[in-house]
Amino acid sequence: MFYAGIDLGGTNIAAGIVDEEGKIVKKGSVPTGRTRKPEEIIKDMCLLVQSLMKDVGITEKDLHSIGIGSPGTPDRENGIIIYNNNLGFKNVHVREEVQKYINVPVYLENDANCAAIAESVAGSAKGDEFAVVITIGTGIGGGIIINNKLYIGFNGAGGELGHMVLKLNGEPCTCGRNGCWEAYSAATALIRQTKQAAQENPSSKIVELVGGDLEKIDAKTAFDAARLGDETGIKVVDTYIDILADGLANMVNIFQPGVIAIGGGVSKEGENLLAPLREKMKGRTYCAEGVEKTRLVIAKMGNDAGIVGAALISKA
Amino acid sequence: MFYAGIDLGGTNIAAGIVDEEGKIVKKGSVPTGRTRKPEEIIKDMCLLVQSLMKDVGITEKDLHSIGIGSPGTPDRENGIIIYNNNLGFKNVHVREEVQKYINVPVYLENDANCAAIAESVAGSAKGDEFAVVITIGTGIGGGIIINNKLYIGFNGAGGELGHMVLKLNGEPCTCGRNGCWEAYSAATALIRQTKQAAQENPSSKIVELVGGDLEKIDAKTAFDAARLGDETGIKVVDTYIDILADGLANMVNIFQPGVIAIGGGVSKEGENLLAPLREKMKGRTYCAEGVEKTRLVIAKMGNDAGIVGAALISKA
Repeated sequence: MFYAGIDLGGTNIAAGIVDEEGKIVKKGSVPTGRTRKPEEIIKDMCLLVQSLMKDVGITEKDLHSIGIGSPGTPDRENGIIIYNNNLGFKNVHVREEVQKYINVPVYLENDANCAAIAESVAGSAKGDEFAVVITIGTGIGGGIIINNKLYIGFNGAGGELGHMVLKLNGEPCTCGRNGCWEAYSAATALIRQTKQAAQENPSSKIVELVGGDLEKIDAKTAFDAARLGDETGIKVVDTYIDILADGLANMVNIFQPGVIAIGGGVSKEGENLLAPLREKMKGRTYCAEGVEKTRLVIAKMGNDAGIVGAALISKA
Repeated sequence: MFYAGIDLGGTNIAAGIVDEEGKIVKKGSVPTGRTRKPEEIIKDMCLLVQSLMKDVGITEKDLHSIGIGSPGTPDRENGIIIYNNNLGFKNVHVREEVQKYINVPVYLENDANCAAIAESVAGSAKGDEFAVVITIGTGIGGGIIINNKLYIGFNGAGGELGHMVLKLNGEPCTCGRNGCWEAYSAATALIRQTKQAAQENPSSKIVELVGGDLEKIDAKTAFDAARLGDETGIKVVDTYIDILADGLANMVNIFQPGVIAIGGGVSKEGENLLAPLREKMKGRTYCAEGVEKTRLVIAKMGNDAGIVGAALISKA
């Protein structure tokens, strides 16, 4: 059997046909066109999957299910996206709409949870009974694997790890609270921190790297400046990693998972990120000597995590 | 069958004989005498259990097991207390020692986890598949119930919820970090906050309530002063509850448990504590409209939680 996975983002709809092992057989993407009606967006999702099925040479009979990952908490039972700010979806009956085109079971899940499923089934957390997957993007996405299963709490809304307050009365967060982990460690936050440092240090290499246009600063800029030995860049990166380490140490103290996997754009820094994180997390985790320690790794599935995780929702 | 449960504290050894439903049939306690050799303390534990068994009229054949709850992470497999600062225990082979006196299976567990087991099996979280139990005492003890089972992570050290940093660079914690939840919301922290407020406001009712001796301030004093309408007392209680609400909101956002139960001395304030907590937690939890919300309750098992939870370790 094959599984279709759809990563429904604000910019693109990415989809793939995935095999039993979580390997993508064929994938593709189309623009979301987010200002359109939900029915039109869902139609494009289905046309994309149908075209991929045709490429692979399979029919509905070979398709186990379609899984769709998107931000927010879906109504899994009824196949409804309750609310998606990015797409302007409000109580959209996604399952019903999809089945007009492709009549197979349709599963919905939060996108950060899909990333965790992908890492658990086919990626960096494969073989770990307990795992936490942190996706650093516009926000901090969290996915929790317990007993090899996705943990979603009693009401399906669990695992909002980015909305753990880390600094009382700290930076405002999009959720309405202040001081959430997300407000410090999301890519968006790193960009904000980098811009501020550049404004305060106009001679910094950060400014040079973006040709003087601070609007061009992205989540990589501070790391690039640091690599050039720029003091401001080094300081921005060090402070960013320091707080990220505090959030991760909290995850260890709470969950003691076998592995914590970090995904999303910032995770492309690889060992540049992991080595100082590991160093800083020492002494911040609460664990007796001699007790086995949580591994900290980069998520393996990269940009495919959303597709693979969505495809395998039914396995989680 | 009956179960023996021992709550091994720094001051007293409390023990009880518990039935299948988690009801205490008979209980008792003796002083720990914490400066003594581990062997002597363990001998007293066993004599206490034997005397309770005699009172109930049962023999070893009727005893399913003995469970022992104490702070720290035990080596459950080998029946060893790896480290207990309070008692000066270091790699004490508790199971082996106990079985010299009473030859039944011996289980060890962290004391906050025992409280969670007790609430889950026989108390406020009975019937909830997902629960978080917070014990407010010298520290903040945490116990997590997932799928009706105690969650301890891949290495047995999970659930150290009090050592979640809530305020970066905040108050020093006994664990070596700064700003842990425990450093703000433990009874010890409340006493510290009350003392400080009393020093700064010598005309406060707090000072009056302890006859001018600030060393007599306990975790109840600020609540008592607040009840008398004392402004300083009201402020101490409000700030204390405000931060406690942030920690609890984090628990909701992470776990979305069906219930959070609060135990320990401070929980005796009951609705005086719960009502403002519920009010403050509104808007701090991340959960779509229409989704069922976590219940916040006072733990039911009171001082017996340690005994009952220890007795039922094997059921968790």
